[in-house]
Amino acid sequence: MAQGTEDLENLIALMAKLPGLGPRSARRAVLHLIKKRSLQLIPLAEAMHRVGATARECLSCGNIGTIDICDICANEKRQNGQICVVEDVADLWAMERANVFKGRYHVLGGTLSALDAIGPEELRIPKLIDRCQSEGVTEVILALGATIDGQTTAHYIADQLPGITVTSLAQGVPVGGELDYLDDGTITAALTARKSL
Amino acid sequence: MAQGTEDLENLIALMAKLPGLGPRSARRAVLHLIKKRSLQLIPLAEAMHRVGATARECLSCGNIGTIDICDICANEKRQNGQICVVEDVADLWAMERANVFKGRYHVLGGTLSALDAIGPEELRIPKLIDRCQSEGVTEVILALGATIDGQTTAHYIADQLPGITVTSLAQGVPVGGELDYLDDGTITAALTARKSL
Repeated sequence: MAQGTEDLENLIALMAKLPGLGPRSARRAVLHLIKKRSLQLIPLAEAMHRVGATARECLSCGNIGTIDICDICANEKRQNGQICVVEDVADLWAMERANVFKGRYHVLGGTLSALDAIGPEELRIPKLIDRCQSEGVTEVILALGATIDGQTTAHYIADQLPGITVTSLAQGVPVGGELDYLDDGTITAALTARKSL
Repeated sequence: MAQGTEDLENLIALMAKLPGLGPRSARRAVLHLIKKRSLQLIPLAEAMHRVGATARECLSCGNIGTIDICDICANEKRQNGQICVVEDVADLWAMERANVFKGRYHVLGGTLSALDAIGPEELRIPKLIDRCQSEGVTEVILALGATIDGQTTAHYIADQLPGITVTSLAQGVPVGGELDYLDDGTITAALTARKSL
């Protein structure tokens, strides 16, 4: 590289830390950005500054936005009484893209994990219990990952919410999925939960 | 997404335009950055601003740096008389990582391409011819891609430089490569250029 490239090397090193990018793709991305300086590099830097200055967690559900109470929590058209519990903001966005759930959300910020020493206090579980009481929630839908930690978390939450219906997403064959490509666990779950036509 | 997320959506859209990222990985990267705001998001935004303000092409070879003449061109310890011609800055960096070439470089900025209407004037070929005369160059090493456009460019450049030795990188089996995984063209080239042990 040329002289005065500490800035360039620094930028490449920072880009390489992004999930999905490594040193080689970071170099490619940086060269691409330098070629499209006014169209991409400068707007991207400014967008990052803005998000860095304004992004915050919703005080109620944990969604990321720029105001204290996100628009899902503030939207009076959304159904009260139903809370969908997700591990992460990305899961909340995925649910919203499916555009099928009309209640509120609650982002845990992870799952219980004995190995990583993550207990209920590290997650937003106490806040969930508060909300269930104060918002008159009747059903909590657990949309957690089908991992051991996810299921442990699901059972822990169900235990903490007596008197409230706790459900979880159905497990089965993905829409458009072919049996041949599915793992044994999914086929077992789909067969166990079979429905009459 | 939550209210006031135009900034977030804008950032995700810009990230998704980077080579190697799509909408899904851009969302993941943005959530990752927001979680690591002070360690990654802010430094990355600042690094981009700095590079956007200072990055420029070396006036001589076309390498990217922050000064008018890059340190390879300015370095008096580098051998005069040899110029390695590459398509792109990324190729120059790859050559430098191999740490074997001690001469100077010349970045073309692409290859001749009839389909894309890229002629010699669109590339830095006239500048290369200038440099060969003014710098007393005796050998031009063409390190261009083994594509049709790359080879067309190589032959064009060789024709423009009478009286100068023009060589190109050897073609053959990659170091560590297994024959079974190589394409026919590479095996043919390696066999044709076989050497006595």
